Amino acid sequence: MTTLEKLIKHFERFPGIGSRQARRFAHHLLTEPAESVIELSELISAIQSTVKECAFCHRFHAVNGTGDVCTICADPKRDHTRLIVVERDSDMLAIERSGTYDGLYFILGGTVPLLDSEDIKKLRGTALKRRVTKQAGNGLAEIILAFSVNPDGENTSRYVESILKDSVATHTITLTHLGRGLSTGSELEYADPETIKNALSNRK
Amino acid sequence: MTTLEKLIKHFERFPGIGSRQARRFAHHLLTEPAESVIELSELISAIQSTVKECAFCHRFHAVNGTGDVCTICADPKRDHTRLIVVERDSDMLAIERSGTYDGLYFILGGTVPLLDSEDIKKLRGTALKRRVTKQAGNGLAEIILAFSVNPDGENTSRYVESILKDSVATHTITLTHLGRGLSTGSELEYADPETIKNALSNRK
Amino acid sequence: MTTLEKLIKHFERFPGIGSRQARRFAHHLLTEPAESVIELSELISAIQSTVKECAFCHRFHAVNGTGDVCTICADPKRDHTRLIVVERDSDMLAIERSGTYDGLYFILGGTVPLLDSEDIKKLRGTALKRRVTKQAGNGLAEIILAFSVNPDGENTSRYVESILKDSVATHTITLTHLGRGLSTGSELEYADPETIKNALSNRK
Amino acid sequence: MTTLEKLIKHFERFPGIGSRQARRFAHHLLTEPAESVIELSELISAIQSTVKECAFCHRFHAVNGTGDVCTICADPKRDHTRLIVVERDSDMLAIERSGTYDGLYFILGGTVPLLDSEDIKKLRGTALKRRVTKQAGNGLAEIILAFSVNPDGENTSRYVESILKDSVATHTITLTHLGRGLSTGSELEYADPETIKNALSNRK
Repeated sequence: MTTLEKLIKHFERFPGIGSRQARRFAHHLLTEPAESVIELSELISAIQSTVKECAFCHRFHAVNGTGDVCTICADPKRDHTRLIVVERDSDMLAIERSGTYDGLYFILGGTVPLLDSEDIKKLRGTALKRRVTKQAGNGLAEIILAFSVNPDGENTSRYVESILKDSVATHTITLTHLGRGLSTGSELEYADPETIKNALSNRK
Repeated sequence: MTTLEKLIKHFERFPGIGSRQARRFAHHLLTEPAESVIELSELISAIQSTVKECAFCHRFHAVNGTGDVCTICADPKRDHTRLIVVERDSDMLAIERSGTYDGLYFILGGTVPLLDSEDIKKLRGTALKRRVTKQAGNGLAEIILAFSVNPDGENTSRYVESILKDSVATHTITLTHLGRGLSTGSELEYADPETIKNALSNRK
Repeated sequence: MTTLEKLIKHFERFPGIGSRQARRFAHHLLTEPAESVIELSELISAIQSTVKECAFCHRFHAVNGTGDVCTICADPKRDHTRLIVVERDSDMLAIERSGTYDGLYFILGGTVPLLDSEDIKKLRGTALKRRVTKQAGNGLAEIILAFSVNPDGENTSRYVESILKDSVATHTITLTHLGRGLSTGSELEYADPETIKNALSNRK
Repeated sequence: MTTLEKLIKHFERFPGIGSRQARRFAHHLLTEPAESVIELSELISAIQSTVKECAFCHRFHAVNGTGDVCTICADPKRDHTRLIVVERDSDMLAIERSGTYDGLYFILGGTVPLLDSEDIKKLRGTALKRRVTKQAGNGLAEIILAFSVNPDGENTSRYVESILKDSVATHTITLTHLGRGLSTGSELEYADPETIKNALSNRK
């Protein structure tokens, strides 16, 4: 295999990228200024040593003066009585973008699909229990499960509830879920009965 | 114009139907059994005299023993202390399908688009005020605005609030809106900040 | 069932129409002027007696002074030496719109799907053979098979070739197929090998 | 900007990639084995020196024993009497995949959009003229213009015809275009008049 073909193979492993777009990526690099291509090469070779998983919330974060812990977890001004559990880094970023939450996070690392219970092993279930016990000592009062509203998200929710059952009872922590109702763009006529039911009971 | 062309023109006026599908509808009728086509012709000729607008909620309903009023409005077991205002018949049907509401309805007849305030004239604003005053005498305690979560729906909401301002003050009626949050199918990563904000504040 | 519900059921039988759109059609008729609804009812009741299948090409056509035969088949100025076989009326209309053909047509009445050979019975195979024999006496020189370029269309093509094999041999008729190549909107990069092969061999 | 943010910025310059997918690419690299990430970094740093533009057809090709010229242009068994002009490398690959052409290629480098005649400057118009003159000495008999069937492709076709006008006259070279007609997947009913016209005139 030539250098070009090897490079295309690497790009084909990128999430959501097929062989045609992988080839376009390679051609893109062939037409970029040489210094830009060298910079990209250097950034890629440095990425794994400059970005680490936060020891506390497990999200990827730039290595910095806060040591093993990311800037959010290290921030003493964040509200340590609340913890949101999400599937992935991108979910945490979506919540941060909303600018309405100043508590802490825990990245579970994925979902529990209905059909493949093997996937449970890849999740940070045990780490979550340890984290809750530890933060309980610092006044943790509420755990908010923030999963997508689809079968996988709901199954993940049941899984997390089951593994945290004892911890929340022992430490009198409240377990909550994100509120349901009409989301931006929802049209009443096409809303499913469950969404309308929640929108009615959450009216205000 | 031939009978076929005239028929196609009629079908082109049907909502969402272009010339190609209108032609297919005509061909469909040409291949249906004669008795079925005659029945359809008779149903169409009878529809306007057997289906009327309810004098109370303004939805279309089959003329029946309850006179000018539809079966929902005439039902003494429905909760007369609550009134949901919706844009169209189809929104009311969506709420009925959810099986979680037993109050009454009012069909506004459309939305107030941001750019075309002329459309206000087509809405039943005056009829809504009369209806509220009348039902207030029967114990109306809450009006629920149930509009789509988009610019037109929000503008319609502001319009209805403005025309009902005095009535709700006079009769101490609570004005509420459907709850917002994650709807069925929402993925956290793609949720907009407003939806996440509402999902967080409505958590439970 | 009420008149409204019966009417909605009829609209649900229209091609491509689900229950929600069927309901919208009924509501559309409720808001149309009474005279328009009556006219539609009358057009529908008259359609089967004013539109007939042409005895020659089998397309639907308005009954007129030309008797059982449509205006195209009855037109002495059309070229009787050529016959295009298509699946449906709409295919014939597409060819007429192109304004580049002045021969005659035969509507086969459908395709032969790969998986359901029962559908052959619904096609006008026997009628086509009779038609070819008859037109052969009037100088028929070429039969053009004009089917969609997909598995069903290609299977239909093989079927028609097999039933016409003897006729074309006996009467020395040429059997042709529509030319293949790049169609309007085709992008070379996404074209399949078969299309490129045909585009290359038909270059000019 | 952190290393992560810089890397994401680079990925955002990749064709068709937005900020969300750029971030996913970075996260993908964070979870890949270290040796795979290092290999990717090395391939990227080497790509511009191992892949060159062919001096003859201008496509990107791996530097190899054939010098400045790619394996296709250097192959004495390819038919040097024919030359296909395409917009991009990917078009050439599509034609190679069809396995029905063994002549040579010239990559024009883009299209001439109807609205932006500035783009002409980026194309290899002058290089194409030189190439034709040179290959004419080696028996070039036919130039095949292989552009997409859309306004930009047709405008590019007119542009190339104008710049080659004199050369083809001087050297008695035939200028052809890819054949038009029904492409794979075309349905007759939805085919435009131009495609039907070509399909009829190219029938066989």
